[in-house]
Amino acid sequence: MYDRQEFISKIVQKAETKLVLLVMDGVGDLPVNGRTPLQAASTPNLDSIASQSELGQTIPVFPGVTPGSGPGHLGIFGYDPVKYQIGRGILEALGTDVEVGAKDVVARANFATVKDGIVVDRRAGRPATEVSSKIVELLNSSIREIQGVRVSFYPGKEHRFVVKLTGDDLSDELTDADPQKEGRPIEWSKPLTSSANKTAEIVNELMRRIRDTLKNEPKMNFALIRGFSKYPHLPQFPEIYKLKAAAIATYPMYRGIAKLVGMEVVKTGSEIQDELESLKKCWNDFDFFYVHIKKTDSYGEDGNFEAKVKVIEEVDRLIPELIKLNPDVLAVTGDHSTPVLMKSHSWHPVPLMIQSEFSRKGLNSKFDEFECARGTLGTVQALDVMSLILAHGMRLEKFGA
Amino acid sequence: MYDRQEFISKIVQKAETKLVLLVMDGVGDLPVNGRTPLQAASTPNLDSIASQSELGQTIPVFPGVTPGSGPGHLGIFGYDPVKYQIGRGILEALGTDVEVGAKDVVARANFATVKDGIVVDRRAGRPATEVSSKIVELLNSSIREIQGVRVSFYPGKEHRFVVKLTGDDLSDELTDADPQKEGRPIEWSKPLTSSANKTAEIVNELMRRIRDTLKNEPKMNFALIRGFSKYPHLPQFPEIYKLKAAAIATYPMYRGIAKLVGMEVVKTGSEIQDELESLKKCWNDFDFFYVHIKKTDSYGEDGNFEAKVKVIEEVDRLIPELIKLNPDVLAVTGDHSTPVLMKSHSWHPVPLMIQSEFSRKGLNSKFDEFECARGTLGTVQALDVMSLILAHGMRLEKFGA
Repeated sequence: MYDRQEFISKIVQKAETKLVLLVMDGVGDLPVNGRTPLQAASTPNLDSIASQSELGQTIPVFPGVTPGSGPGHLGIFGYDPVKYQIGRGILEALGTDVEVGAKDVVARANFATVKDGIVVDRRAGRPATEVSSKIVELLNSSIREIQGVRVSFYPGKEHRFVVKLTGDDLSDELTDADPQKEGRPIEWSKPLTSSANKTAEIVNELMRRIRDTLKNEPKMNFALIRGFSKYPHLPQFPEIYKLKAAAIATYPMYRGIAKLVGMEVVKTGSEIQDELESLKKCWNDFDFFYVHIKKTDSYGEDGNFEAKVKVIEEVDRLIPELIKLNPDVLAVTGDHSTPVLMKSHSWHPVPLMIQSEFSRKGLNSKFDEFECARGTLGTVQALDVMSLILAHGMRLEKFGA
Repeated sequence: MYDRQEFISKIVQKAETKLVLLVMDGVGDLPVNGRTPLQAASTPNLDSIASQSELGQTIPVFPGVTPGSGPGHLGIFGYDPVKYQIGRGILEALGTDVEVGAKDVVARANFATVKDGIVVDRRAGRPATEVSSKIVELLNSSIREIQGVRVSFYPGKEHRFVVKLTGDDLSDELTDADPQKEGRPIEWSKPLTSSANKTAEIVNELMRRIRDTLKNEPKMNFALIRGFSKYPHLPQFPEIYKLKAAAIATYPMYRGIAKLVGMEVVKTGSEIQDELESLKKCWNDFDFFYVHIKKTDSYGEDGNFEAKVKVIEEVDRLIPELIKLNPDVLAVTGDHSTPVLMKSHSWHPVPLMIQSEFSRKGLNSKFDEFECARGTLGTVQALDVMSLILAHGMRLEKFGA
């Protein structure tokens, strides 16, 4: 079976075009009182683009499959999300801005409460982040090295933190040191291949050292460690697509995914307006721009319809400034749907519009789920988004004679 | 390359939801005088569900490929119909309610007219079923065993019957004992592998014995035997999808296919109303219900527009009783199209609607081919139907972090 990305890479050609991929995270939704947030929002600028665009909807993985942020983004970047499965540990590390070296192994960890060898609370009563951070500091000062391997701890939200092992011959082929359910005994990590024997020993010794260090803590007296992963080596976006690619994102997780595929992460602030300023500033230095809007997803997860509508309207107000830059191709989409009604990611198709001089425009004059379901692009895979952007940017050669 | 069903099975989770898959066999059609049977039928209840559903259309195998009942159903059950090809013999056996054991080989057979070693009529003048059944009885009393292998004959419609071989070391890797065209000499079965030598010998001896037994019959004086098949071992539906699955169907063929994939076949009568009663009766014992309506297909095959419309209207009248059961997910679709105009199965996409709390509803208010072509689900594969039903029933975990 051929790999889609490999096929596309062979017909990529250079061109003097500027391409913008604007990702409104989790933008797709379900109707609440008859309207989705995209329908309820006042979006004169997005609608005006829709009238100059071709619309469609994307399936992130397969129909019915709800993607995490990793697979959701890999798809729209043109990477088959089933072929490239990124370990939970590395995503957590990227999400907390931890630098991961080629030989490092990272894992996500939870503080947990253990009594008589039984895990009684997998989240140690969900401590406040300020409280758990102090315990992470304590671990950092108490446990620095095991069998010549450097151990580092990074705070996360509430009970979560990240463990990084730095040393030679480390492997990520280990089972989780986590019984997954409460009421079960402590689970030790087991190697899945003989080359992981040493790492498993180190992890289990690390768990004992954590237990010793935290033995007087009332709740956070143990840690569950899982999702061991090394830095994955993905085909690099700039090489495959012959693009100088910039990533603009306010959240570390998305900067991390962009870094994984080889994009250059551009400095930005915490607001959408900051992202637009960053885009303007770096406009002359790149030819592909991935701009990530986080809060459409966040408010979907919170079940906050009005706030999701407001974020969409905020994006809409900034669109004219983006258009002033005169991109040759502007693609607007999401990485998945996050319906307010479900307060979670979902499997529903994701709205997509692509504006260029060569758009088959004229069918739609609004950007929302229903218009996109009936657009000229049809229902495609997330994997198709990059090929379409490249095509509209005159960056794909004719295939065959 | 990964298998889709294997991928889905890894993210299946249990839930307390009830899922109904209502299959109107061959429901998809073409317009006759501007309207399809679905459009011509008065279906207030199906239309009301449509307004609460997301609609789409499915491609049974590939665009342009017309499926038989086997591939049509395997697809909507989530089995790649190209990967799992069920022998014609086994389907014929299942269709005539023949019990097939793990070591048995079954085949479909035709009575034929042979003159001087040449097949002059492959269907022996299409005898009436009552007439051919008597000849099948005669075969059963005359030929009981060959080389220690038990031989059984089961009547079918008109010239058709089923042959079953029961014994040790039987193989189905044989060529058809059928020249396929009239005017050609008798064809003997040849083994395709050396392990099929013995079975080929038995089949050819069986053909000689049939010829001897029927030598005084004017027309039904020979038999063509083809589609040798053993009972296929398919991944089992209840295990893959973690579902307790019931099948309700009036025709043996569909009960047979359901049995093949491991569903439990529930007793029912011959009418649609009987099927609904069976559904109510077993509602508490299962969490997945496959309900098969045969006559939409039968009247399509007959080219009887009005009768097809009436069956659709009959289904529609029973919908409120189904809705009273309060299924969490109701999917309504077909296994293929059977256009009245063509009097046969066809390759045309099949209407699909899925109703659940999480449907992206609101775009459509009618259930027919045209509305489905413009629904929010887009055009998907039959293979996607099960994933979508599971997703709507909260039975698929998020894929990746």
